[in-house]
Amino acid sequence: MNTRERHFDRELAELKKRLIHMAEVAETMIDQAVRELVDRDESLAESVPRHEEEVNRLQIEIDEAVVTLIATHQPVAGDLRFLLAASRINGELERIGDLAINITENVRVLAQQPPLKPLVDIPRMTELARRMVRDSLRAFVRGDVLLAQSVIMTDDQVDALKDQVLRELLTYMMADPQAIERGLMLILVARHLERVADHATNIAEDVIYQVQGRDVRHPLTPRDGG
Amino acid sequence: MNTRERHFDRELAELKKRLIHMAEVAETMIDQAVRELVDRDESLAESVPRHEEEVNRLQIEIDEAVVTLIATHQPVAGDLRFLLAASRINGELERIGDLAINITENVRVLAQQPPLKPLVDIPRMTELARRMVRDSLRAFVRGDVLLAQSVIMTDDQVDALKDQVLRELLTYMMADPQAIERGLMLILVARHLERVADHATNIAEDVIYQVQGRDVRHPLTPRDGG
Repeated sequence: MNTRERHFDRELAELKKRLIHMAEVAETMIDQAVRELVDRDESLAESVPRHEEEVNRLQIEIDEAVVTLIATHQPVAGDLRFLLAASRINGELERIGDLAINITENVRVLAQQPPLKPLVDIPRMTELARRMVRDSLRAFVRGDVLLAQSVIMTDDQVDALKDQVLRELLTYMMADPQAIERGLMLILVARHLERVADHATNIAEDVIYQVQGRDVRHPLTPRDGG
Repeated sequence: MNTRERHFDRELAELKKRLIHMAEVAETMIDQAVRELVDRDESLAESVPRHEEEVNRLQIEIDEAVVTLIATHQPVAGDLRFLLAASRINGELERIGDLAINITENVRVLAQQPPLKPLVDIPRMTELARRMVRDSLRAFVRGDVLLAQSVIMTDDQVDALKDQVLRELLTYMMADPQAIERGLMLILVARHLERVADHATNIAEDVIYQVQGRDVRHPLTPRDGG
């Protein structure tokens, strides 16, 4: 391995580290947004937008690093595909940060009213979605197809929980007009969490595509239910 | 210009044509999904998933074309950035197709019940969102910053309409428990349309970034309201 190749490998390792860090920040944002809701802890309200600035900065840095790496080292085949995937994953992580912001906006409305019900399924969805984000990034940097497949399988659990949340909240809303706005906000939170899981699934599908050259990004049935 | 450069330009022109075509298909999907709702025309139900297959196929082809173009021609600076932007825009268009599928899923629930109200704002949102998709792609292939800016400005109108739809439907839902499920489905349709507009806005921001080298992807306030 010559100096040039060593240089490329070092920059690639740096890029991976940054993506992992960005995923950690995005995951923290989701956690804090939902904890603000569940624990009714307003002290977290300012933390999520602050983290968003970091995610946005990281997105721009990572995009620049990808352009520089391609332009400087002109990689082909595997390395080039990896860099293009890094660029796509960068976009997925930035959207996860946006979804955390969306959740905080619903939480702000919910904070003005008494709790509708003790929340059980939404914290469970949050745990699963966070693990999916973490594992999809680990799968990417290690090229771990089995871990990527486990992420994709977990998505079904998240979808099932979202359907359960929707059905349950609809019964509350039907029974009491006072519950309608809060029910709607909680349904939107569940949908945002479902979309976090979808982004992690996109990343995991990209990993399988990278490693196996097989495009699993378009299964026969659409994933993201209405 | 040598043969190699001519070859590159020809392939780039082909790539632009494919992206424009993909945008047209995605736009048609949105149109048909909403017409199925507004005109209660079930004959459109099968058309949207058929178009989705085409969008998915185009996405894979365009991703492959980008990899091949970079690997074969090793472009730098402007051309490289353009190709990476094409790859990101490819992803945005595929998501617009997914949103059309999401809309048809809400429409399927709505089709089983009588109409809640005559729909006015949702068709308007649809028109605006479709125009944004079309214009953002035109702005991209032409490098037209003014057109990209007009897309970004239209996004505010779409957001305002979505808020109006939400407020109006909430009053229907509060007044009549029978209206709750239909109201919720219509709110979700409006949110999907808002997200279509967000994807067009992402594309437009990318165009400005391409042309001016200025990153407008992260304005100070988040765009996609709760």
